[in-house]
Amino acid sequence: MFDVIAFDADDTLWHNESIFTMTQQKFREMLSSYGPEVVDQTLSSTQLKNLKHFGYGIKGFILSMIETSIELTGGNVSAKEINQVLDFGREMLTAPIELLPHVQVVVEELSKKFNLLLITKGDLIDQETKIARSGLAEYFASVEIVSEKNTETYSKILTQHKIDVSRFMMIGNSMRSDIVPIVQLGGHAVHIPYSTTWVHEQEHPFVDIDRYSVLKHIGLLPKLIRGEK
Amino acid sequence: MFDVIAFDADDTLWHNESIFTMTQQKFREMLSSYGPEVVDQTLSSTQLKNLKHFGYGIKGFILSMIETSIELTGGNVSAKEINQVLDFGREMLTAPIELLPHVQVVVEELSKKFNLLLITKGDLIDQETKIARSGLAEYFASVEIVSEKNTETYSKILTQHKIDVSRFMMIGNSMRSDIVPIVQLGGHAVHIPYSTTWVHEQEHPFVDIDRYSVLKHIGLLPKLIRGEK
Repeated sequence: MFDVIAFDADDTLWHNESIFTMTQQKFREMLSSYGPEVVDQTLSSTQLKNLKHFGYGIKGFILSMIETSIELTGGNVSAKEINQVLDFGREMLTAPIELLPHVQVVVEELSKKFNLLLITKGDLIDQETKIARSGLAEYFASVEIVSEKNTETYSKILTQHKIDVSRFMMIGNSMRSDIVPIVQLGGHAVHIPYSTTWVHEQEHPFVDIDRYSVLKHIGLLPKLIRGEK
Repeated sequence: MFDVIAFDADDTLWHNESIFTMTQQKFREMLSSYGPEVVDQTLSSTQLKNLKHFGYGIKGFILSMIETSIELTGGNVSAKEINQVLDFGREMLTAPIELLPHVQVVVEELSKKFNLLLITKGDLIDQETKIARSGLAEYFASVEIVSEKNTETYSKILTQHKIDVSRFMMIGNSMRSDIVPIVQLGGHAVHIPYSTTWVHEQEHPFVDIDRYSVLKHIGLLPKLIRGEK
């Protein structure tokens, strides 16, 4: 029924948002005199403003934290505190990759029967080093790192790999990036929600729930593919 | 004789190193009390140290400048100065793309007879927005953005596009990234030096000058391809 199964990476195969959440918690503590809501709101609007130029990823996040700290303090943040933000970044960039439950077994099993793709959005070097550190690289026939996941980028990937969309399945945690564009293209999509979703990823066009599957965790995927519900 | 002609982008199709050079000049002026050599050396060693985690690109360069300014001043750099460095970054990220002489005509002409690829190293979003701003995107059958250009990444691209290396030509300004790996793989390479080369790109294994071509500027490329020397 399927030739190719593609996986999203961050928060589908391994924890990612949690590293950003933990870092943002430290950032809030650093600027505790301004109150957590104000810090969060300022950081969030700075990130969205910078997204077009910075793209997704850790380096852009660090730069947005530095900008936020200067803005919030009216230029009174100390070099020591900015250095602390750089340290947050270094920790994020070298954090060990923690696979989600069942991932290792499921990916290994499916790789024996299907061509697996990894399609991930973000910073090129961040994603490459995470894939290398994950230990999963060998199971994927190809890895595609893109700056946005929309119908256009998916179409390009499908054409390039000569994949018929009706025989293509995409697995991911983001409705906006992994599910909606695939449903719109006429492919199969499996939504596996992660515990937290960045607010930016929560906005997406409506798609009928009948047109994609939802699983509680990736361990249930092989059954779904075999057609046992 | 050739099926596919691939171009490097930065400093082959448009000016890039000059934007880094100009920014570094401003950075030197900001820290003028430390002397230009010390600023340059500290920035250079910080960049090389961070390369593994940051990769190439503007965001990593900004972060390395911030780190350098904190280190050099012993933590006494002001938030105002760090904000200035963020401004340098914003300027770099939105700088207009200045094509090198002859590029527009040559790329357009060659695109009528050959499949053209763009193979560029760097930050995904930096490179994508530069290609979009360059006005050249329509001439390229495909764009490959990689984190390093070595025999491994080139082999992957050749396999993926089903290109026979003996019918492949790569054009670029960097011996290390554009010429040496292609010569090692048995392809044709044309070196078009740019006025300045980042010191990191200058180190490369020796290859015999008989095994690649050198041109003064890209305007001479169509003649070379037609076999007129």
